[in-house]
Amino acid sequence: MTNTEQAAASDWLQSVRWNSLKDQLDLLDQRLLPDEIVYLELTTSEQVWDAIKQLAVRGAPAIGIAAAFGVYLGVRGAFASREELLAEVIRQCEYLATSRPTAVNLFWALDRMRARAEALLGEGATDVPSVEAAQRALLDEACAIQAEDEATCRAIGEHALGLFEDGMGILTHCNAGGLATARYGTALAPMYLAQEQGIRLKVYADETRPVLQGARLTAFELQQAGVDVTLICDNMAGAVMQKGWIQAVIVGTDRVAANGDVANKIGTYSVAVLAKAHGIPFYVACPLSTIDLNTPTGADIPIEERHEDEITQGFGKRTAPQGVKVYNPAFDVTPSEYVTAIITEKGIIRAPYEANLKKLFQN
Amino acid sequence: MTNTEQAAASDWLQSVRWNSLKDQLDLLDQRLLPDEIVYLELTTSEQVWDAIKQLAVRGAPAIGIAAAFGVYLGVRGAFASREELLAEVIRQCEYLATSRPTAVNLFWALDRMRARAEALLGEGATDVPSVEAAQRALLDEACAIQAEDEATCRAIGEHALGLFEDGMGILTHCNAGGLATARYGTALAPMYLAQEQGIRLKVYADETRPVLQGARLTAFELQQAGVDVTLICDNMAGAVMQKGWIQAVIVGTDRVAANGDVANKIGTYSVAVLAKAHGIPFYVACPLSTIDLNTPTGADIPIEERHEDEITQGFGKRTAPQGVKVYNPAFDVTPSEYVTAIITEKGIIRAPYEANLKKLFQN
Repeated sequence: MTNTEQAAASDWLQSVRWNSLKDQLDLLDQRLLPDEIVYLELTTSEQVWDAIKQLAVRGAPAIGIAAAFGVYLGVRGAFASREELLAEVIRQCEYLATSRPTAVNLFWALDRMRARAEALLGEGATDVPSVEAAQRALLDEACAIQAEDEATCRAIGEHALGLFEDGMGILTHCNAGGLATARYGTALAPMYLAQEQGIRLKVYADETRPVLQGARLTAFELQQAGVDVTLICDNMAGAVMQKGWIQAVIVGTDRVAANGDVANKIGTYSVAVLAKAHGIPFYVACPLSTIDLNTPTGADIPIEERHEDEITQGFGKRTAPQGVKVYNPAFDVTPSEYVTAIITEKGIIRAPYEANLKKLFQN
Repeated sequence: MTNTEQAAASDWLQSVRWNSLKDQLDLLDQRLLPDEIVYLELTTSEQVWDAIKQLAVRGAPAIGIAAAFGVYLGVRGAFASREELLAEVIRQCEYLATSRPTAVNLFWALDRMRARAEALLGEGATDVPSVEAAQRALLDEACAIQAEDEATCRAIGEHALGLFEDGMGILTHCNAGGLATARYGTALAPMYLAQEQGIRLKVYADETRPVLQGARLTAFELQQAGVDVTLICDNMAGAVMQKGWIQAVIVGTDRVAANGDVANKIGTYSVAVLAKAHGIPFYVACPLSTIDLNTPTGADIPIEERHEDEITQGFGKRTAPQGVKVYNPAFDVTPSEYVTAIITEKGIIRAPYEANLKKLFQN
């Protein structure tokens, strides 16, 4: 991440951008938003690993897309044989999978890259492309993952928008927006589509401590798009619900378990409990790639704990006493009984989740 | 507030300290904690008004104490007559009452100063002190308010500690500690008394956005006292309850209405709803001076809205886009049905609050 580039703000900011001229990944550094719009120029898989780990790129789908390009960056050099290339793809996938433990899209995208490599280079490969052709095909696969994500997000937005009405107040937590995906986002997709269609939604964005994705990213991207957005602190969610300002909550997710339990940014569970107490529907928006039928319940989702500095000096200045004990989980798990519906590109899923999620993958 | 003084940290930090040598109010600037321990040297009521408005002093009882000294500072000059002194006391009380709208202790302390002035200087005064003697008596009254608050807080702590057991996890929000009062605090008083008696409580402190009183003040003063305290972000309260780590919530309050509704720092309502959803008792600790039978319900409590900068650039660095809409109420109201008990210096009050609070003042 040696070079940075100051990009002009455009109509929408693409968080992950393949630069075919330079054969590199241009990654919007989300840590600097909203003050600075800087693209990191990544040329190695190690740089992609770091960018994921350090939250320069975040949002489950965007992490998956970045990792897919990271695989290509890790294997684009010279290889003596097709077998060696395949072995390196597998090694790179294993390596990139260690960057963050919770987001299942990361593993999904890496599995897809690996499966593509095995189809191209494995023992049962039907045609036998050269090393160079296989490398190009892997880049194409990463580009396809990105293009499909944009279409997926738009489909999620169309389904979700059917749940909202003109004039509604909608609360969201963290950032499941265009910045977290190829475009549109998951939880924010209906807000962009509403904007296109002249439907007025009033969005409340939790600032989302400690990393403030709601303040820095959600408020920023919705404001850029002209959506009516009001920023609140996380602890105000109950108060705005009490006032009757919120008619629906919609959030993204990093992993949905087979039973419908949802892992998402820390604080999501509190919002879900508050929504239920106020009789407000609580929606989760995600692509199918976020649903992991191999994870039986939320209890099986590993929850990453992050460094205490995010809490004690997250604003660039120390705001807590030296040496104080801190608990800083990055995610929490919302049990499925709090989830009114899960909105995917294939439609709206409701309880019983175990059966209905399974059906989703059978069709 | 021209002069400041770097004070050495002592066993406990007194937030409001009358300096009889210099005839001035030394006020711990709580905005600079935990990094710097600085006492403002206040010599005029205007400086006290500013210190309350700007949150240099905060916490309902501490605000009341500071305001009482502010009255004295406002009337210690030369007066031609006892009548003129009384008129100025009344004017100063009215002026200082405009510094913050929610904390009822402010009005309570000012009413008490005014009542004392009227007893000394009014038409029905039984003895007729000189202007100078009356001024000294007003200073004595402010000192008495402070001394009584310390005894009150200790009594609250003794009653509250009876509700806790060794090993319990206790969650608190904002700072209702020694810094918010003369000493011990209200919600934190049982933790100090537990420490004295060798009872181990495990305290979780919400950082309390936007001004971070939990991180800067509660975590700081409990850590100084050797109490086991863990700092969390506000949005983690639900997650730590879900994990079974919390056996009780205790908070302070800025005003209790006659029906038991409780105004306290923004975010308290969310914590109360979360506590109820998890079957965890939710306690409110306060002196009788915080209970206002003249306020029928929480709906009648004015809720101060503060500047958006507290959220968008609370700690010197901008963390939200320019021009974004912000909602920043300083307080919220927790309806009495969420309140398990109110703990006062006279004992523990439970529902029905309307009847039981009234009885408290009749005895």
